[in-house]
Amino acid sequence: MDATNHQVRLAKRPTGMPAPDTFEIAEEPVGEPQDGQVLVEVEYLSLDPAMRGWMNDVPSYLPPVGIGEVMRAGGAGRVIASASDRFAEGDHVAGMTGAQEYAVVDAGGLSPADTSLAPLPTFLGALGMTGMTAYFGLFDVGQAQPGQTVVVSGAAGAVGSMVGQLAKRHGCRAVGIAGGPEKCEWLTGELGFDAAIDYRSEDVAKALREAAPDRIDVYFDNVGGEILDAALGRLAMKARVVICGAISQYNESAPRPPANYMALLVFRARMEGFLVFDYFSRFPEAAKEIAAGLADGSVIAREEIVGGGVAAFGDTLNMLFRGENTGKLVLAVR
Amino acid sequence: MDATNHQVRLAKRPTGMPAPDTFEIAEEPVGEPQDGQVLVEVEYLSLDPAMRGWMNDVPSYLPPVGIGEVMRAGGAGRVIASASDRFAEGDHVAGMTGAQEYAVVDAGGLSPADTSLAPLPTFLGALGMTGMTAYFGLFDVGQAQPGQTVVVSGAAGAVGSMVGQLAKRHGCRAVGIAGGPEKCEWLTGELGFDAAIDYRSEDVAKALREAAPDRIDVYFDNVGGEILDAALGRLAMKARVVICGAISQYNESAPRPPANYMALLVFRARMEGFLVFDYFSRFPEAAKEIAAGLADGSVIAREEIVGGGVAAFGDTLNMLFRGENTGKLVLAVR
Repeated sequence: MDATNHQVRLAKRPTGMPAPDTFEIAEEPVGEPQDGQVLVEVEYLSLDPAMRGWMNDVPSYLPPVGIGEVMRAGGAGRVIASASDRFAEGDHVAGMTGAQEYAVVDAGGLSPADTSLAPLPTFLGALGMTGMTAYFGLFDVGQAQPGQTVVVSGAAGAVGSMVGQLAKRHGCRAVGIAGGPEKCEWLTGELGFDAAIDYRSEDVAKALREAAPDRIDVYFDNVGGEILDAALGRLAMKARVVICGAISQYNESAPRPPANYMALLVFRARMEGFLVFDYFSRFPEAAKEIAAGLADGSVIAREEIVGGGVAAFGDTLNMLFRGENTGKLVLAVR
Repeated sequence: MDATNHQVRLAKRPTGMPAPDTFEIAEEPVGEPQDGQVLVEVEYLSLDPAMRGWMNDVPSYLPPVGIGEVMRAGGAGRVIASASDRFAEGDHVAGMTGAQEYAVVDAGGLSPADTSLAPLPTFLGALGMTGMTAYFGLFDVGQAQPGQTVVVSGAAGAVGSMVGQLAKRHGCRAVGIAGGPEKCEWLTGELGFDAAIDYRSEDVAKALREAAPDRIDVYFDNVGGEILDAALGRLAMKARVVICGAISQYNESAPRPPANYMALLVFRARMEGFLVFDYFSRFPEAAKEIAAGLADGSVIAREEIVGGGVAAFGDTLNMLFRGENTGKLVLAVR
């Protein structure tokens, strides 16, 4: 195969928001799958807040992306050459392809994407890592029970919008915190959240007193900062604070840690972090439940698909940090 | 009974450290026990970091002590008049007596203090709330298992010194963080801690790398601030951070919250607060275990007993915030 593969490579570690010189587009020949591998023509790339952390030269749960390396990213596409008996040519798959047009990937790291069930981009969102993150964070770490109050920040984002819908489906009261009236209307309208708080125009601590009259049993945090503090002040006894992300803090040189953390003592509450990768063996359980929700209409998958191909990767990523997306942000590669 | 009762009353809410005008000594006649109550001649008062929080006009797990009210305090003494069939005149007891020389208390709120088992002040320490706090924090919240590494801050204090000893008794590696070489020598010498870190002269983050080579499974925090951050950076996977107190922060107008809290995500760890009062029904279980440790010598109870009576209450309390005590700080009332 003599096509050219365009790749997004990390050119320079950013300070603050990623800038035009953070990434560079490189060209190289499309690779050949070796034994156990497949060659994927990537159609969609996932944009995730966690990417900002992967770009820092700090040891974390995954090694930092090296300068000159292809940017780590989830992708979905079609197998165009296979040296594995797991997938055949033409199969749709999703997994960590990296930010590039063609990826040679170990077949064991890919999941099948059954496009009769949902369109391909949904396998990066509701039926992908996003959905898995929401499901295990809410039910395994957060131990959400029917009748309890679940509050989620970044609620109009990929994970947040799934958390609230899964909470409702489970019989919880779901309250979302998001930026702007359109997002809030989407949450309480189409998605069926019980209440939404616009952090841009409302005093979140005050609004939580109204929106969570019985206090908060599960707070699912995607943002950190002041909103985390406001939620800590409204916890119920024995509450669970699920630490999924801290998007408000990723580009800050002086992060704002949770000043209210002693609320954990006052309310005998727990704050716990998790990583979706740890739940890999249980993904089918979550996927089955979410697919059932999509089928019966209790869960709505929304992707915001941006065009422009790999050259638009950096600009599209920054939409996340400016809070410009609603639902799962996806880059169309072709 | 026509004796006079000297009481420590809260005169003024402090800003920062309690000052000479924070408390006033009041006199009133000794009270009479009503049905179900006893009159206790208080011999020892417990000094606890949590007292600082009780003095703030902020709703918390207990209502604030009101201006003009007797300062809330644990005490131990002798029943000198009883209108309850639970205790007879002459019995030794411990419980929330308030900071005063004589207390009329509901008998149901007092515990018997068997002075054939240990001296009376020990019922404010190892066999009192202090020991209970260490036990339930370590085993119930912290889920410490044999072979795991337990790190405790404020390790030469009342709760901290018990945590380390109970951890050792349970087959854990015990590392203490304390201020000054004498305290550290006491921890690794008489108390048998595996290692001690002097936060006044050492870089705690660096010292933890040596003292906790397998990282930290349970971090029991009594201090907050920079030391909490250092411990968060050294957590093991699935670690438990037990929030018992934050003595370094109680007198600060601008507290230093845990900037490293996202370590909870990296290490899939949990930070959880608790209050010993919630474990009241299980106190006998802990007391039995601690008494066994005292009897076989694996647990050493040390009280630092300060004289001066109730007039010395404020000065003695401040010894806690200056880190001047070793073991359980107790005020001798007579």
